[in-house]
Parts: sequence; C-alpha cells; structure tokens
Amino acid sequence: MYRGGYTGKIVRINLTDQTAEEGELPLEIARDFIGGAGFGIKYLFDEVKAGTDPLGPENKLIFASGPFSGTTIPCASRMSVTAKSPLTDAVGVALTGGYFPVELKYAGYDALIIEGKAEKPTYIWIKNGRVQFRSAKKLWGMKTTDCQQIIKNDLNDQNVRIACIGPAGENLSKIACIINELRAAGRKGLGAVMGSKNLKAIAVRGNTRVAIADKGKLKAARGEFTKAMKESHVLYPKFSKLGTPATVDLTCAMGIFPGKNFSATGEFAPVEKIGVEVQETRNVGSEHCYGCPVGCSQLKMAKTGAYAGILAEGPEFETMYSFGGVTGVDNIDAIIAADRLSDELGLDTISAGVTVAFGMELYEKGILSTEETGGLVLKFGNHEAMVTLLRLMAFREGIGDLLSDGVRVAAEKIGKGTEKYAMHVKGLELPGYDVRGAKAHGLNYATSYTGADHNRGYAFQEIFGIPIPHEVDRFAPEGKGKLTKWNQDVCTATCDAPTMCAFLMANAVPDTATQNTANLMEAVTGLKYTPEDIWVVGERINNLARAFNVREGFTRDDDTLPDRLMTEPLKEGASKGHFISKSDLKQMLDEYYTERGWDINTGAPTRAKLTELGLEYVADAMRS
Amino acid sequence: MYRGGYTGKIVRINLTDQTAEEGELPLEIARDFIGGAGFGIKYLFDEVKAGTDPLGPENKLIFASGPFSGTTIPCASRMSVTAKSPLTDAVGVALTGGYFPVELKYAGYDALIIEGKAEKPTYIWIKNGRVQFRSAKKLWGMKTTDCQQIIKNDLNDQNVRIACIGPAGENLSKIACIINELRAAGRKGLGAVMGSKNLKAIAVRGNTRVAIADKGKLKAARGEFTKAMKESHVLYPKFSKLGTPATVDLTCAMGIFPGKNFSATGEFAPVEKIGVEVQETRNVGSEHCYGCPVGCSQLKMAKTGAYAGILAEGPEFETMYSFGGVTGVDNIDAIIAADRLSDELGLDTISAGVTVAFGMELYEKGILSTEETGGLVLKFGNHEAMVTLLRLMAFREGIGDLLSDGVRVAAEKIGKGTEKYAMHVKGLELPGYDVRGAKAHGLNYATSYTGADHNRGYAFQEIFGIPIPHEVDRFAPEGKGKLTKWNQDVCTATCDAPTMCAFLMANAVPDTATQNTANLMEAVTGLKYTPEDIWVVGERINNLARAFNVREGFTRDDDTLPDRLMTEPLKEGASKGHFISKSDLKQMLDEYYTERGWDINTGAPTRAKLTELGLEYVADAMRS
Repeated sequence: MYRGGYTGKIVRINLTDQTAEEGELPLEIARDFIGGAGFGIKYLFDEVKAGTDPLGPENKLIFASGPFSGTTIPCASRMSVTAKSPLTDAVGVALTGGYFPVELKYAGYDALIIEGKAEKPTYIWIKNGRVQFRSAKKLWGMKTTDCQQIIKNDLNDQNVRIACIGPAGENLSKIACIINELRAAGRKGLGAVMGSKNLKAIAVRGNTRVAIADKGKLKAARGEFTKAMKESHVLYPKFSKLGTPATVDLTCAMGIFPGKNFSATGEFAPVEKIGVEVQETRNVGSEHCYGCPVGCSQLKMAKTGAYAGILAEGPEFETMYSFGGVTGVDNIDAIIAADRLSDELGLDTISAGVTVAFGMELYEKGILSTEETGGLVLKFGNHEAMVTLLRLMAFREGIGDLLSDGVRVAAEKIGKGTEKYAMHVKGLELPGYDVRGAKAHGLNYATSYTGADHNRGYAFQEIFGIPIPHEVDRFAPEGKGKLTKWNQDVCTATCDAPTMCAFLMANAVPDTATQNTANLMEAVTGLKYTPEDIWVVGERINNLARAFNVREGFTRDDDTLPDRLMTEPLKEGASKGHFISKSDLKQMLDEYYTERGWDINTGAPTRAKLTELGLEYVADAMRS
Repeated sequence: MYRGGYTGKIVRINLTDQTAEEGELPLEIARDFIGGAGFGIKYLFDEVKAGTDPLGPENKLIFASGPFSGTTIPCASRMSVTAKSPLTDAVGVALTGGYFPVELKYAGYDALIIEGKAEKPTYIWIKNGRVQFRSAKKLWGMKTTDCQQIIKNDLNDQNVRIACIGPAGENLSKIACIINELRAAGRKGLGAVMGSKNLKAIAVRGNTRVAIADKGKLKAARGEFTKAMKESHVLYPKFSKLGTPATVDLTCAMGIFPGKNFSATGEFAPVEKIGVEVQETRNVGSEHCYGCPVGCSQLKMAKTGAYAGILAEGPEFETMYSFGGVTGVDNIDAIIAADRLSDELGLDTISAGVTVAFGMELYEKGILSTEETGGLVLKFGNHEAMVTLLRLMAFREGIGDLLSDGVRVAAEKIGKGTEKYAMHVKGLELPGYDVRGAKAHGLNYATSYTGADHNRGYAFQEIFGIPIPHEVDRFAPEGKGKLTKWNQDVCTATCDAPTMCAFLMANAVPDTATQNTANLMEAVTGLKYTPEDIWVVGERINNLARAFNVREGFTRDDDTLPDRLMTEPLKEGASKGHFISKSDLKQMLDEYYTERGWDINTGAPTRAKLTELGLEYVADAMRS
C-alpha cells in the first residue's frame, strides 16, 4: 500500500518477446532502497547472474526515478539507469536530469526493467501505463536531437519525452551514453547496452498524479530543504550564475585541472583561454531541469571559425576538462562543438575526451603513426583532429574503431605497454580532477562501485571547502577512508535514490542532508525514517553494489589508480610535488575498508556487515 | 461580418515602438484577394512606397495564411511571407508549410504586418491574440533547429510553433530564408528582411477555432477536392512515395537537369549517383505537413564519411539540383548534408547552390583564384568546398562575404564580365529546370513577379504531362504566353491565396482547380464565388504584383533570361540543340502581354485591365 511518492508499479519489458508485464513495486524494496540507483542495483544484483555478457540479451537495463520525482520537491527530476557495464564489467549506474525522469513517473511507472533483445531496431512508447513496441528502422543511425524530434512527430505529440542512443550506442561503443533532451546518462557505456538490445529509444508521456502522504509535512520539509540549498555558496551564486564550468578556474588555481593526459597538470592550465571570463563570452542563457531553482546548465554558443553557431547545453566542467585540459585543447569553441557532437553521436564526453587524449599521447610518443591514425595529426591541442576523431569513434571507422571502447580496451589492443597511459579505474576513464592534489577524490575513484566516478561520492570538501564540518587537507591521506564512506553513502541515500540532483551534496551543513531526506521521505511516502535510517539506506546500496562486483570477481587489487598518479609527482602548480603513493593508497584503503566493515584483504563486504544491513541473502548468494 | 474561414483579425506589429495594434480584416480585401499571397501583395502595394530600401525599417514583412488554413481541408497549412525583396527589389513572396501556418491562425490572426526595426534582437510571441516582444539576445547567432527548441523551452510549451532566421538572415545575406520546423519560406531573401528588423523569430500558439459557414457543403466540396487529388498520378504515388526528388530522374531523361552552372546540362546527368534508386537507400520515412494526406517530404539520412548520420527533410528536387546538378556534385550524402546545413544557417538552398556553382565556374575559368577563395579548391563537384562555402556565406567570412548576396550582386562586385555566368532573373537564382528544353518554364521565369520562380506558375504540363487538356510541345514557343498566364493565375488563386500547397496544381483536370476552390470558398466562408471569380482573383493578384514592380521601375526589359540560355544550345541529351532564342522569348512575351492585356511595349498593366479587375486605385497610384 503506497501512501505517496511511488506509483507502486514497475514494468518488465521484454524486447525478445515484445511483452510488457506490469508488476507491483514491493513495499519493502521501496522502504529499504528508496528508489533510483537503489532500485537499479537491487534488481541488478537479484536478476543478472555473475559472468553475464554486458552486451548480451541476459543483461538488464533498469530505468528508475524515485519517490521525490514528480512531486513539488525541487531538483528531483532525476533518473538512474543501471546495468552491468560493458566498460567496467561492474555495476553501471548513471543518472540524468532534464524532463524525462518526471515524465516517466507521469507515464505510470517507478521503474522499467528492460530485458532481452529486439529482433529489429525498436523503440518503446509508454503512455499512462500502456507500453508499445514500435519500429525504429528509420531512426537507426540518427543523431539524438533529430531522433527525439522525429519520434515526437511520429507520435504526433510534442510533449513526449525521449531517452535515446546515437550512432555510438548502436555501434556498441563501450563509451556510449543515453541522451534525453541534451542531457546524458553518460558514463559506463549504458548506451551500448541499449544498442545491444536493438533499443533506439524510450518515449514517455502521461498524467499519472504522484500522491503525497502528508502535504502539510511536505510543505514544511520542503521549506527546510530549500533553506539549506540557499545557504550553499556553491549552488548560489556559483552554479546558478556560472554553472559547473567555473570549476575550471578553481581547479587550475589548485593545480589539479588535468593537462595533456595527466602529463602536464599544473603546467597546462589555460584559464585565460577557457576559464570563466572566456566562458561568459559564449553564454547564451541557462537551462533548468524540471522544478530546479538553480539552473546550473549554461547554454553556450561557439563563435569562431567552423564552430560558429554551434550550441551546447554546457559544456559542464567535466567536458571542459575532457575536451579541453586533458586533450591539451584550449579553444573554447572547439570544446563547445565537441560537446554537442558527442551528445548528438551519443558518446560520453568524459570517456571520449580521455580516450582522445590517450590517442594523442601515443601519437606524440610515436606509438601510433600517422598511417595508423588515417592521416590525423593527433597531437595534444589539435582540436580539428579531436572533433574528427569523435565521429570516427562513434562510427567505428579507422582509428576510431580502435578507440571506440575507451582507453582500457584500446591499450589491450595496442599493447606495447600503453596501459600506463590509459587513465582509468576499472575501465572507467578518469573525471576532471587530478587526484594527486585531492586524495579523497582519489580514494573515491579507487573504491567507487562504478570505477573512476566523480558522481558516486564526490569530495566537495576538497574542492569547495564544504560541507564545513569536514575541513580537510586535500593532500593528506589521513581520514580519507572515513570521509569517502560518508560521501558515498550520503550521496547514494540523499541523491541517487530519492532521486535528487547530486549537487545537493553541496549543501552547507552535512547532517541536514540526511535529516532533510528523512523528513521529505516521511512527508511524501508516509514511511518513517530517521536520519540514521537514510544513512543506512546509502550504506545498504553501496554494500549491495560492492557485492555485485565481488561476485563478478573484483577484489581489493581492483581498487587502484593509474600508475602515473602513484609514481609521478605533479611538476607544476599549486599541487606541485604531490602524488598518491602506493603506500598512501594502501593507508586510505585500509581505513576505508575498516570504516565500511569490509574484509581488509579482499575488499569484500563481510557477512556480518551484510546481515546488519538486512542483506543476509546477499551473503548467501555470494557464497554459492 | 465573417461567417467562416477567417479569424477576421490582422495585427500590425511595430518593432520600433514595440506596439501591436489589432485591426479588422476588411471583408472586401478578404473577398477580392482571398488570403495568403493575396493579402501580402495587397498590403505591400498599399503600404510600401516605391524606392523603399528592402533592408530598411520602412519595408514591411507580412505573414498571412488563408481561409482554408485551420479547417479540415487537406494541404492547407500554408502561409505566405511577403516583403519587398532585397534580392530582386521586386515583390518578394515565399510560401511555407508544416505546422506554423495553422498555428498562426489558431493564435488568432489571418495576417501579421510587421513594421519598423527593433532596437535589439527580439522575438515575437503571440498566443491567442496576445502579442509580446521578448529578447532574442541569447538566440542571436543560433542555428534554426536549436533556436526553435530554446524558444519552446523558454516559453515552457513544447507545442509552440516558430518561424525564425539563422545566422544568414542576421547577417543580411540577400539569399537568407525563414525557417519553421525544417521547412522554409525560402526564396527572395526574406530572411534578410527579418534580420534587418532585428527580428529573430515569431512564436505562435493558440486555440482559436476557425468557424465554417456551411459544414455540409464543406464535406461535399472536400470530397470532390480529395477525389481530384487522388486522380493525380503526380501526387499518388510519385510524390507520396518518392517525393519531389524523383524528378531528378525525369529531368535527366528529358535533358533539362541543369549541370555545372548550366554549362553541362544533358551531359552531367548523374541519375546513377543521385537518382531515385540511390535516394531510396537514404530514405528514412516521410513527413506530412499538418492535414496533408500526401506526405511528399521524404526524410533522408546521409550514410557515408563525414556526413554520416546527418538528417534532412528532403532534399527536395530543387535542392538535389542546387547542391547536386548545378554544382556538379554527385555525392548524395553531401547534398543531404548541405541541405540540412542551409536550413540550420537559414540559407535558401536554391540560391545558395546556384551561387556556389557561379563561384565554381569563375574558379575553373581562373577568374577567382585560390587566394581569393581562401584556399578553397572551388571546382565543380568538390562537395567539401561547397559545404564549407555555405558556412562562409552565412557568416560573411572571406569569399563567403562576396557570395553572400547571390549571383547578381557577386557578379557586380567581381565585374570582368562575370554577369554572363550569373544564372538569375531579376536577381533571383534559377530553379532546377534548364528552360532551354521547357519553354513555358522559361517564360514563367522571365515574367514571374518574383524573378526566376518555379512556384508562381510552374508548368506542370511540360514536365509531368498534366493537367491533360494542356498537352504541350515543351520545345515550342507557341502558346506559351497563354499557358503561362493560366498557370500563374490559377496557382495564385487556388494555391497561394487560400492558402494551399502548390502541388495541387498537379490535379488531373485543370478546371477542377477553380471549381473546387470556388466550392470550398463558399462552404468555408459563405462568400459566393464562381470558378471565373477564382480566376479573376488570381489575375487581380498578379496584376497588383506587377504594378508594384512597375512602380519600382521594372519594364519589359527585365522580363528576360540569362544570356547563356538564349545563346548556347544544349549540347547533349534529350533536349540537345534546343535553346530559347531571343526571338523565341520575344514571341512568347508578346503573346503573354497580349493575353494579359498589358502594354506590349512596357510590360505594364493597362488602366483598362486594372479597372476591369477593380484596381482603379492602382492605376491612379502608378501615375502619381
């Protein structure tokens, strides 16, 4: 019995049989996992066996919003997409915002569990609990903006919201993403999972009302929540006025904006070319996700040369890094163009940029020849080559095919010791922080269940100095185990599950997050939660995800970082001389596992911890 | 008193003052001019003085649909845009379809008369008779698809329909068009008129119902009309299945598909590269204008190389010609890409392609050097150069600035006798028929009030052999004066005014057009019309347009064709040896003026003719 927040319904969509089976969302799953990534990981662990081919029909793709989506709570139009990742072979979770997530709820479902593989290109059309399978023959090969428009025209309804893949996903690029509007469920190659199922798009529309258990309580809780948001100097005015790319200036000043495949961090810090002052000359307004008062997304339009007139939603900081810093490109318009192109092709901008940078380093070192690149002069900073390469990667043409699956696969194919230039953890390319000067970030990359992921436990403390009680020395390894657990669990419980924007981690006071989430949960759903209960949900989900990975064969050895970050101290800038030594990492990991109550040797959750979290069945499943 | 068909309201929007004044549509104007281009030309003649600078604030831009738009009559979501053309200095009328035209009506108006010039980039937002002026600061420089989406987001309404300009219009390119959805009011540089007024876009939305005078009569008349449509082998299956680009095969077979700036027609006839068989490998479905059962618009997606994944609505035949035949390009994917790029930049595809071809001929003849082209190897067939040049033209960069205003201006600037390579009439670049093998087309180009326009009196008879009673010898000059008058007047009266798709000229039996229009007019509006009345409306509008041009200084001498078509016989193909000699043209013009009752020496409407048409005031105005 649902009193609010949930539709109470999930739908299992089998593409092989073209069937849709509606089922109840079990109340205990709602209570224990809240929603979003919680649901995704729960169903993934329970239904996708160890050793499943991520690109085979046995993998499942789970779209889930949470109980806050579709209510009046701000910043809650978020949705998780979960599958076994083809890029990491671990849990793949990516979240997206915009308008699709709430529309999914209005269409009648808390979650879609997509199974099997369609015989032919297909798209799914869901309206008010009615699921249809439609031919995507004409959409196959199409870029994502056109794809969304053509589906709207086809369905004769401009208010339909669509999540789709581009050519990259169709071509099973392991760094392909899923796009809705101009937003992405970007990382871990989930677009390839969609492509492997011959699923081009999901279109949703409806007017299912989301009930509220206690409207009075919700009003009060929302007030508290909004107050906390307003106290964050990160959200206001930084993100609301400048968006995430303002972080270019900050990370350059800190000496951690990664330069040239992490070989020139601190040295290549092109603030005067791509920093805030220049960014503002390209800003043409902001976009808001449904119900968001911040509106962090800054639309930018390129102005010069062949890029003139190209619009991007963003580029976000991570894209400024991936098509800027790490590739050595300092042409703002090229970055804008590459951002939009990636969205259109359905490539994850972070992984794509880092992979381009990897290719550039190999080219500069003479490991890739001009013959092998098909004539591309793949030097750091060559933005034309970068833009061309993105297309080749999405279409798997020439050198693009070699690089289409990210740096780990490319390094394996090329051999010659190139793995040392492959900047990834567990196969997932690094985000935009050189963790040699931000060690909680480093530990989070090493331990996140998705690989090097900045969104599953971002250490705001090291970058923005908040939440305040956690004042930290970003260079010190001490205390980072505890901090990382805190960041991971709180982010999971208060953002990835309910579902809320992860930027709300930037609230000023850390304990307000769990308190507010507890209050909001109670108001919306009628279920009782203490702040500690919220914490435990976060811990439960992280443990379950870890258990999935352990069952897939992951061990402590996989909780590591690229060699470069552990052996080469930063040469220039405000973090000069720093690096994460192997003993630093060991120290941080030991603390982390201890804090988590995990086996310090294997990095696996113990039976005791799982039992404490109500996950006895997981301990049993892992033994079998 | 309006009984149906019309909203009865026009709105005069002054951008200088930011005012909107709603007025009644006078019933006599409705009766005598029907709507669409009729309204546009009526207000243009009455309100825009001789000698007005087309790009000055005194020029007016008139958007008008007709009484059929927004009713259940099929193919009636059409709208005319009228202004004094900056490309021709004559009447500029272009029509567009899609969804905007009916939405304009639903928004509450039969016509918008846009005056003055906004101080800053502006867009107009009209909802149910409420006109707002909004800043287009962030939209300035933006491509047309993004512009439309951002406006929808801004207005928080995905059902808004938008007509806008791209960078070409902003930069006052005289070959700039106006785009709604992926459709264009393409020709005569009306996009530059919008740009000159600092008007980026017009957004419309509403639910004004269009009343019907007699629903029973409408049902019957619509039945007759639909029956006539179904009898047309051009509409079904040719246009419905293959769209207009199938005409590539037909015109190649006839030896009139223009090749390489009209220097190689008959010789360059690349059916095997860009004809129907190849086109079908790129087709991904069709798009229908609002309420159209034909759906002639074939979506095509490029497949190869740098063009892969680019979608175009079209390319229509005219674009297959302008980015194919006339430029010597036979790469289907480049044509698709150039089509989409032009739509995004807001360039008229016909004028843009012919201008590229002009540049190519000059380059091949050594008149333009590689230095002057900024390194572009501007040879016939070089599709990369073509695509690059389009961007340069829209942004007025380098060689693009020289070519941005079409062939006539470019030839004037370059001098050196290059006018002879400039394929235009009255400044308007030629459409896709080499009229040396289709003389009624030639006469229509020479006499159309808009310059070389295939849409103001297309001689279906010469290309498709219909309407049947007009069996014609396409090589003969005889009878073409009468035929052209017929085509011009009927097209104006039955398509451009009510407003209907011009393809309905392809109905099987000629007299059904006027009869059906009379029936439909009576059913919709309650006004009485005989088929002859409809004819007279067409004649009236053509006379008024001609009078506008005469008042601007146009004479018989302007009713001519490019020298090449009058002096160089076709060298190859099924029209080999044919051309329109100067005496052919003289013969045709004499017949045409005689049929029209115009002065055979000046080409001007006589007072007698104007009086007969109820346009005495025009005769007076022209004398003053």
